[in-house]
Order: sequence, then C-alpha cells, then structure tokens
Amino acid sequence: MTKNKFNAGLVQFSVSENPAENEKKAVEFVKEAASKGADVICLPELYRSRYFCQKEDIDYYDLAEPLNGRSAEIFTKLAGDIKKHIIVPIFEKRGPGIYHNSLLFIDNNGKVAGVYRKMHIPDDPAYYEKFYFTPGDLGFKAFESEFGKIGTLICWDQWFPEGARLTSLQGAVILFYPTAIGWHPFEKEEHGAQQRDAWITVQRGHAIANGIYVAAANRTGFEKPVKENDGIQFWGSSFIADPQGQIIAQASVDSEEVLVAEINLDRLEYIRRNWPFLRDRRVEDYLNITKKFID
Amino acid sequence: MTKNKFNAGLVQFSVSENPAENEKKAVEFVKEAASKGADVICLPELYRSRYFCQKEDIDYYDLAEPLNGRSAEIFTKLAGDIKKHIIVPIFEKRGPGIYHNSLLFIDNNGKVAGVYRKMHIPDDPAYYEKFYFTPGDLGFKAFESEFGKIGTLICWDQWFPEGARLTSLQGAVILFYPTAIGWHPFEKEEHGAQQRDAWITVQRGHAIANGIYVAAANRTGFEKPVKENDGIQFWGSSFIADPQGQIIAQASVDSEEVLVAEINLDRLEYIRRNWPFLRDRRVEDYLNITKKFID
Repeated sequence: MTKNKFNAGLVQFSVSENPAENEKKAVEFVKEAASKGADVICLPELYRSRYFCQKEDIDYYDLAEPLNGRSAEIFTKLAGDIKKHIIVPIFEKRGPGIYHNSLLFIDNNGKVAGVYRKMHIPDDPAYYEKFYFTPGDLGFKAFESEFGKIGTLICWDQWFPEGARLTSLQGAVILFYPTAIGWHPFEKEEHGAQQRDAWITVQRGHAIANGIYVAAANRTGFEKPVKENDGIQFWGSSFIADPQGQIIAQASVDSEEVLVAEINLDRLEYIRRNWPFLRDRRVEDYLNITKKFID
Repeated sequence: MTKNKFNAGLVQFSVSENPAENEKKAVEFVKEAASKGADVICLPELYRSRYFCQKEDIDYYDLAEPLNGRSAEIFTKLAGDIKKHIIVPIFEKRGPGIYHNSLLFIDNNGKVAGVYRKMHIPDDPAYYEKFYFTPGDLGFKAFESEFGKIGTLICWDQWFPEGARLTSLQGAVILFYPTAIGWHPFEKEEHGAQQRDAWITVQRGHAIANGIYVAAANRTGFEKPVKENDGIQFWGSSFIADPQGQIIAQASVDSEEVLVAEINLDRLEYIRRNWPFLRDRRVEDYLNITKKFID
C-alpha cells in the first residue's frame, strides 16, 4: 500500500577535482538528509566530478564508470544501511565508445531498482555535452516505490514539457531533476537574474501543468577547469515545488545545503481533483508533437 | 517581408448584461489600443456577454452568433478602418446543436483571415463549459501576418503545454490567450494568491519552453448571474511575457485597461539562439503524448 506522505531530500554541494573527496562528501550529505527525515534523496548531476563538459577532451572519459561501478557500490551499501532511496547521477560507461549521462534509482533495500539515461542533451558554450553523451535510449521513467512512482529526469530535460508530461503520465507523484547549471561570469550581471528565474519558472510550470511535485538538485560553487573559458558559477538554488507550483523549500545560491520537504499525496490528489487538466487533454490532436517542426 | 518589431495590445474590461453595451465598450478599447500604437489587438474571451457558463441554461444559447455574425460585422469594419489586426473571441453558433468557444483572427485589411475553436474545454464548478461548447475540430492555429505568425489559443488551453508547443511549432512568434478566469469568493482568501500565481507561471513557462512571446487578455469585475452560486471575481492581471518568461506589461486585478507592449523579433531570435530547446527535442520518443495515460 502506498503511504500518503514522505519526505524528499535534495543535496546541494560544491565539487572538487578529487572524485574520492566528492564521493565522501556525497555520502555524508546523504546521511545528513536521512537524519533529517528524508525518504528519497537526490544528489546533483555528475556529483562525482567537476563539470568536465566545459571542455571537449577525451581524457575526461576516464571519469566514467559502468552501471555497476564505484557509485553503485558505495550507494547501494549506504541505501541498504540507512534504508532510504537514493538517486545517484553517474557518468555512465556503457560500452566501448558509448557513454551516457545517467542516474541510478537505488531503493531502500540497497538494490539498483532502475536506471534513467538523460534524454535531452545540450550543447552550448561551456556545456559541450553532445561530445560526451549519447542521448538516452530508455525513454522516460517513473520507478515504483512504497511512496508511489518516482519520476527522474536530468538537467537539460528541465526545459522540455514533453519530458515532464511523459513521466507524469506514468503515474509519477514527483519529478526529480539532478542538475548542473550556472552562470557564465561574463554575462551574469546583465542576464543572470532572468536566467535563474526562467530555470525555476519553467519547472514550476511543469508542476502546475501536471499537478505534480518537482524537486531540482543543483550543484554550487565556481569551477574553471580550463584556461579557454571563464568558468561557470553554479547557481545552487535547489528547490522543491508543490503540485500548484508553490516553492515549499529552496536552497541559497552559494552554500552547501541539504533540503528536506514533505511530499503529501493527499495534497497532490486534492490539487488534481480541483485542477483536472489530465482529464481534458486532446490526445487525438497531439500527434504533431512527434515532429521537429510543423512546416 | 516580416517586420522585426510590432506592438501587441490587450484589452481588459468588465462586462455588463447588455451585449450592445459590451460591443460598444470593446470597440472603444480597441480604438484606444490602436491609438497607443498596438498592431495586433486581443479582446477577452466571450467579450460580448457575461460569463454565462456559471449556470447550465439552454436560454443562453441565444447569445451565440455565427462566424459571419454581429461580431464579424463590427470588427471587420473597424479593422479595415484603423488598419489593425483584431482577435475577437465569440460564442459561435456553427449549426443546429453545434456551438463552439471560438475566435476570429481579423487582419488589418478587415478580412476574417482565420478562425480558432477552443480545443480544451473545462468543466468545473461555475465554469460549466462542456455543457455549451463542442471541443474545437480545427486543431491548433497560427495565422500569417506581416509581423510573422500569430498563434491563438483560448483560456483553459493555457494549462496545456501541448497547445503552446503545437502552436509554436508552426512558427508562431506570439501566443494570444483571450481568457475569462477568476476567483470563487468563498475560497479567494485561502487559495486566491496561489491560483492567480499558477495561472501566470504556467504561461510564463510556455514562453520559456518555446522561446515565444505570450499575451493573455482577461476580463475583470464581479459577475453573479445566478442565485445558485457565489459568482466569480474575475482577476484581470492581463499580461505580456517575453521569450524568456519575463513579464514586460501587466494590468491590475480590478481596473479596465489597455496594455501595449513591443514584440521584438530580434529578441525572440536572440533568445532562441541562446536557448536552443527546439533543436534538442526527442521526437522519436514523444509518441506516448497521444495517450490519455500510460498504464
């Protein structure tokens, strides 16, 4: 039977150049989230390394790990010990020449209960992800849990209403978005506030349109791994929004934090009854969504 | 050749029980918008009558008009005189027993250049639209103009990312949403602020996700046409958002206003180049959008 309340936990931290340090920090923050009552805990995207996609460099493939690699080892053990669900984003080495930006959904028995591979891959100055990551081929995912279905997406997916909708339509009660997004220092003063606001707003929009909780875990800190660019100031601001798009918890821009908020399935049901959008979709007229452009 | 700038105009007013009065008021406000420089001017949903959907009553069908009825007559003449585009929402009588919640897209030569019929029809306490309106069968629409393609949707469509996407994918540069939405007095104090905020946020989300201008024209005023319920306090708040979701013009909750803002296609292009979401859609994995639920 599904429980009607649980706590979502988000971990926001800054990442060093040393993967072993990052692993250790992630474990400590997950434990802290658990001690604060979190039942499903999400780490930021690619938590184990600096955001290497600022440069196209084949040596960075050394950072990748298989689905049953180091992150799976550490966090299945931890999840089994503390009896919590943990969402662990990894740089996945799937096979020779095939890498993904993925996450493990680890259940509270310490088993890898599911995998999601980032579907929408960006390629923008200092976010050269199309160089590293093959777009996901597992489709959109919502994983069974004792609290209902848990939807997972990753970062750039945030900007696509289709991803939120296709995950919600599987019966998800919450969408987790592990993230690595920040400002280019050269444009922060002019455009920074609007960029961060757009990032929050579009995800609040997904919460409203789908009547679903949304939880985004971002990294914080400044990273400048290469001389060639100005680096990225990751903007933190991890947050949890309720099914009406109201923000019920939010982290700061620049400190490491654990965020815990109650996910109330009675409230979700109440909102969905009062705002019955899923009832009225005109699916017979949506086929053109499967086109790149209607011309 | 498409001009790279134009002005959008929104008319927000309160509606009386007398259609002739409402017509007259609408004409005056359209003229005012034109005098303030608006090139494409949008009236609120069902501008010609009180929001009769608060009650299911067959006598209200008397308010309906054909596509070439009274509203077309008045506003094609006006559009030709002032040389402006006008979006005129009507209660359409299409044939015996077939009524729609529609709009006329009238061009600046005074011709009805297109028709849109509301695709998503609500049915909620005091918004009994499913009683009156057959869901639209023309699909989603963007109409050619000298300023680029103008997308139109109506009210409840606002909550559906599919409508915004399918209109944007036709190359629209702006989405107009004539609207009639407000508060139930009995719940305004507890839920009113969040409801209005959700309405604005979900539409700003469409602007961001599609890199498009969004303009919503709502009515204002209190209407209590029947004893059986508390009436609706229409919340005004008409607004125009830019392609990054920033609000560039907004009306008050309770006064009649004309809102005019610049639609800058260079800015739209700039935002779409910097936030290239349309490039990265995974259309091969979107087919399930055409399902009511994925189970």
